[in-house]
Parts: sequence; structure tokens; C-alpha cells
Amino acid sequence: MRILAFESSAVSASVALTEDDRLIAQSFQNCGLTHSRTLLPMVESLLQNCGVSLDEVDALAVAHGPGSFTGVRIGAATVKGLALGADKPCIGVSTLAAMACGARALGGRLCCVMDARAGQVYNALFAVQDGVPRRLCGDRAVKLSALAEEIGQEAYFLVGDGADLCYNMLKERCAGLMPAPPELRYPTGYGVAAAALPLLAAGQACAPQQLDAFYLRRPQAERERLKQLNGQTG
Amino acid sequence: MRILAFESSAVSASVALTEDDRLIAQSFQNCGLTHSRTLLPMVESLLQNCGVSLDEVDALAVAHGPGSFTGVRIGAATVKGLALGADKPCIGVSTLAAMACGARALGGRLCCVMDARAGQVYNALFAVQDGVPRRLCGDRAVKLSALAEEIGQEAYFLVGDGADLCYNMLKERCAGLMPAPPELRYPTGYGVAAAALPLLAAGQACAPQQLDAFYLRRPQAERERLKQLNGQTG
Repeated sequence: MRILAFESSAVSASVALTEDDRLIAQSFQNCGLTHSRTLLPMVESLLQNCGVSLDEVDALAVAHGPGSFTGVRIGAATVKGLALGADKPCIGVSTLAAMACGARALGGRLCCVMDARAGQVYNALFAVQDGVPRRLCGDRAVKLSALAEEIGQEAYFLVGDGADLCYNMLKERCAGLMPAPPELRYPTGYGVAAAALPLLAAGQACAPQQLDAFYLRRPQAERERLKQLNGQTG
Repeated sequence: MRILAFESSAVSASVALTEDDRLIAQSFQNCGLTHSRTLLPMVESLLQNCGVSLDEVDALAVAHGPGSFTGVRIGAATVKGLALGADKPCIGVSTLAAMACGARALGGRLCCVMDARAGQVYNALFAVQDGVPRRLCGDRAVKLSALAEEIGQEAYFLVGDGADLCYNMLKERCAGLMPAPPELRYPTGYGVAAAALPLLAAGQACAPQQLDAFYLRRPQAERERLKQLNGQTG
């Protein structure tokens, strides 16, 4: 199965083309430019350089959150648009699960963390067994202090754009934390494809219209609107 | 230090832009197209998409062999040309060392292997210590049977385009062999940059004119010419 996979949930962006578990091509960048500018040129030059057209792809996959509201929305909207235009099935996977799949070579336990601001991280914990990351908990927005308590002295690789934050804040309380090496720190298109492959094989693809983003928290604008509404009615 | 790194020694090709040990951008492909067609478009779109010009790069690095004669030559020639045009220092690193750097997250021992045809592989062995691959031997062209004898029952991850060949031929004699996962199997631009960084920091860059390829064996055309010459004089 040939998957075109997109990841743009946080500071970095990546696109990958895979054939079953084989990586055919991948682009990654973490240069601080907005994904709305970089994502489409990335996929365009990747496909062109491989001599593969969108028609020859079996499904499109995207990291559907949690993550930056704008980043997640750009990824999901790009995949919705391309899949609708090319009449392809698509699938959304957890950004944190995709991250764990991309970093599975580290083995052991993985603590995937994204900076969610306000003292929180988006987080999930995984244990790699026979090369496959198994979930130890669901995706969540959690306070650093609560995460520290849960991890204790256990050995965990920190993966994701929250790795430095987490390491710097918690290394004294949690002596087993190790930042993943820079080349496996950020989520990749390959990780998205690897997380999507078993779901697609199990028939869990959806139509482009059904693809949605999962933020875990409401965007700030919505939170403020709700507060205002509650204030008006309260 | 900002490094633009190239890898095209075997079936796959990759370009990476790094800042010290940080990966800023990377393109990788393993779709069977010739590197003479794919390498320059890859670097062009990578730099353009990052908004970085060749002028803003401190040095160019390339995997200078061993590997496919054509692939190694394309990589070295591309870097020579770009470095000469942009007046930048450059450096060549062992393809096998670059491979080990790219797969260092696996830890343990790495057996880097490239198919050298005629029952041989280009090979070097490494042990990862504190995230850095340390050489256990120099680069060499070696028969599979001799490699099997040397490895014995020791645990080694197989990295490189010779991993499948090696695993299939030797798994019964060498029970500790494990193919690296697909996403870390092939050499990357990041691996080249990681192998080049300490050498560049130690002042080992060279002028573009001095950059050369290291094949370990003579190309077939040269071998045949020598055989002919020896026949004529013998």
C-alpha cells in the first residue's frame, strides 16, 4: 500500500511517500517558516522528483493533532483538499503516536511531548515492544508537574518539540529522562505513515469530508468566546 | 556551523542542511531514479523551501565512498561544482561512517554493509558509545563468508543497502544479526553532516579541487584495462 503522509502539527513539517513499511521518499524541515508556505511545495517537489503522481497513491495520511491549532489545521486542510481533488481515501492519526512510530528505533520507553503553553504539554507515553510502540496512556494535555509525578525515576526518551522544555524543567525530579537525538526528535511523515498503515489495513480510512482535527483543548479564540458567552448568560 | 550534506553512494539519495548537530531540513529518496536526475533538484528545492542560499552555508560535505562508482562520482562532482561556484570549503566522509552516524539511535553494534557485487560487501563495524559510533575496523571490501566468521554470534544491527543480502545469506551462521528498521536502513544527508561536523571543527576541510572519491576497489573498466595491459606485456 502506497501512502502519502503529512506532518505539520508543531514547529517542523514533513511529507513522506511510503510503500508498505518501506520509505520511498521524505522531506523534513524545521527552519521556522510557516507550514502554509512550505507544505505544498514540499509535497509537489517530492512527488515530481520521484516521478510519482497523486493518482498512483493509495491513501493520504495526516497527523490530526494534538498540536499547534494552525499547524494541525494546515495539515488536515491540505490532505482534505488533495484527497478530495484526487478522489483518494484518507486517515488522521495522533501526532503523538506518529512521533512514537518515527522514534521507535530508540527502543525502551518514549515520552512524546509537545509544548502546549501555560505550563502544559500534549503528551502520551509508549513502550516499544518488538519495534512497535504500544500505548501506555491516551493523548492528553497535562501539567508538567503531574507528568513528573507519573514518570518518577523511570527511563524515558523525550521525543517532540517539548523535549527540551520537559528535560530542563524535570531532569532533577526525573533522573531517567533522556532527550532523543536531534535526528529523531521531531515527528516525520514516515512516522505518520507507520502509524496509519495498520489502521488503513484494518479498513479505517475515511472520506476527505470526514477528516477532522483533534485539538484536545479548544482554541484560545473559542475559549474566550465561551467565557464571554458564559459571562453574558451568567 | 551550517553544513549542506550530500549522500548518493548507493540506491538512495539524500541532502540535508544542519546547524551544528541540529537538523534543519532533509530530503531523502529511494525510488530507483538516477541520482544525476534527482540530486540537484533535491538540493535546490530544499534550500529554496528553507529560504537559505548557498552563500549562507559554512561548508559542503559529501559521502565520498565506498559505494556505487557512478553514485559516489555524482555526489562528489555535485559538491565540487557547488563549492567551487560558491567559494566554500568542503569535506568528504566515509559512506559507511555516515551510515553509522545516521543509525546511531539504534545503539549497540552496527554492521554497515553495501552490496559490492561478486560475493563482496563494502563494510565497516561500529560500536555506539554515548550516542557516538566508534570504529571497530577500517572501511573494506570483504567477502560475506569472511564477514560471517568475524561477526560470529555477536549482536549487530545491519545498516545499508546490503542489509537484506547480508541478513538472508548469513542469518543462520550469525544468529545476532538484525536488519535495521526501514527508516534507519539507508544513509542520509544528516548522517554525512554528523560524520563531517567533528572533522570540520578540527579544521580538516579542503578546497573543492582537492575533494576526491574513495572507491576501495578499482572500477570494472579500469580493472579490465589493467588486465588487458598486463596481458599485453606478460
